[in-house]
Amino acid sequence: MTRTPWCATVLTLFPEMFPGPLGLSLSGKAQADGLWAMEAVNIRDFAADRHNTVDDTPFGGGPGMVMRPDVVDRALASVEGRPGPVLYLSPRGKVFDQAMAADLAAAGGVTLLCGRYEGVDQRVLDKRGVQEVSLGDFVLSGGELAAMTVLDACLRLLPGYMGAQASLEEESFSSGLLEYPHYTRPADWDGLEVPAVLLSGHHEKIKAWRLAEAEKVTRDRRPDLWSRYRTDHGGRATV
Amino acid sequence: MTRTPWCATVLTLFPEMFPGPLGLSLSGKAQADGLWAMEAVNIRDFAADRHNTVDDTPFGGGPGMVMRPDVVDRALASVEGRPGPVLYLSPRGKVFDQAMAADLAAAGGVTLLCGRYEGVDQRVLDKRGVQEVSLGDFVLSGGELAAMTVLDACLRLLPGYMGAQASLEEESFSSGLLEYPHYTRPADWDGLEVPAVLLSGHHEKIKAWRLAEAEKVTRDRRPDLWSRYRTDHGGRATV
Repeated sequence: MTRTPWCATVLTLFPEMFPGPLGLSLSGKAQADGLWAMEAVNIRDFAADRHNTVDDTPFGGGPGMVMRPDVVDRALASVEGRPGPVLYLSPRGKVFDQAMAADLAAAGGVTLLCGRYEGVDQRVLDKRGVQEVSLGDFVLSGGELAAMTVLDACLRLLPGYMGAQASLEEESFSSGLLEYPHYTRPADWDGLEVPAVLLSGHHEKIKAWRLAEAEKVTRDRRPDLWSRYRTDHGGRATV
Repeated sequence: MTRTPWCATVLTLFPEMFPGPLGLSLSGKAQADGLWAMEAVNIRDFAADRHNTVDDTPFGGGPGMVMRPDVVDRALASVEGRPGPVLYLSPRGKVFDQAMAADLAAAGGVTLLCGRYEGVDQRVLDKRGVQEVSLGDFVLSGGELAAMTVLDACLRLLPGYMGAQASLEEESFSSGLLEYPHYTRPADWDGLEVPAVLLSGHHEKIKAWRLAEAEKVTRDRRPDLWSRYRTDHGGRATV
């Protein structure tokens, strides 16, 4: 059975960065297997002057350069109609999370616009209704690494990407909790032992221990997630 | 004047991913200029058997594999004493932000441990007091893209990295606000005009407009940041 590959389009001034790390490891294998495909479109190809100018100084003054609306608009026009939404990576955007990754994975693809310099002229974002998405509360030198990170989070949710789909269900955020701690061989390492319950073979007790650990780490480290989890579970929690 | 380069160490099963995108553009230039240096250490080099095994099944059952504590411990021991903290990229960690980027940039370097599979045996993190850091509330196929993203956020704060240091001061998060919108030429594009105040040449009015826009976008998109900003400013805000 042949499926249409999940379609990633990236608009960037640095197409040579792609697929980069995504071309290796599991995502590289999935790309080779036809699970997903990507195109990195060079925004500079849509400049209109003989210097291939893509940016100019900001109106109102200030440091840095801003990417021109006309150039970015032509680049976006060239990829219209592809599956999934058009997102602009920007610290001003909605904060990316696992639910967005799942939505994008199910959308058949995504088009990601990467800014450089001070960012993109606001008018082209307004005109095209481009959704701004932020990786978090920090500033990067461009949208490229944020785009790769968003793609990685989406790709691993594609059917057939992971060997064991079960591991998707137990991991952080899918339950609203951070994940429980992991242990493997050796059982006694450097005098540090694995929690005894994990060696007991008692599946119900192991499940209960893992839930309690997941609740504990979430409560201790992420009061924001903990509060949401408690609300969702009607105040019932193990710890 | 010669300065010691800022020192990035990455422990990974995929050293070939590095420097990757960080070897291009501004970060690549800064690396070539000696502002920073990096080493990608292959965790597999610290395996002890002839199959170079780095992982094993999790105690207590469940899908996936866990990275062995002894192998990771030897890899960490090999880079002891380098400048800056040792961080493990994990969705269970403290959420990375601009303040952490500034601290790391000032710390002379950082060592980043990248997990794969289900993660790293908890005992080696506990034994070495490794701090867990999360890029955000999503799951990646490994820590490598998160490590690159953290490095990018730090590198651009190094003195001499950016042409105009001023642009660091006006950007998102340094003021507690998201950034105001940007505009550049053409002034009239596709019938969409630049806000008139930006063409006025009146610096005080431009400054006031930008602050009001920054406050507005923060209030509309990020109630969490807005609430903190209001508290920090004793309730005074333009909008």
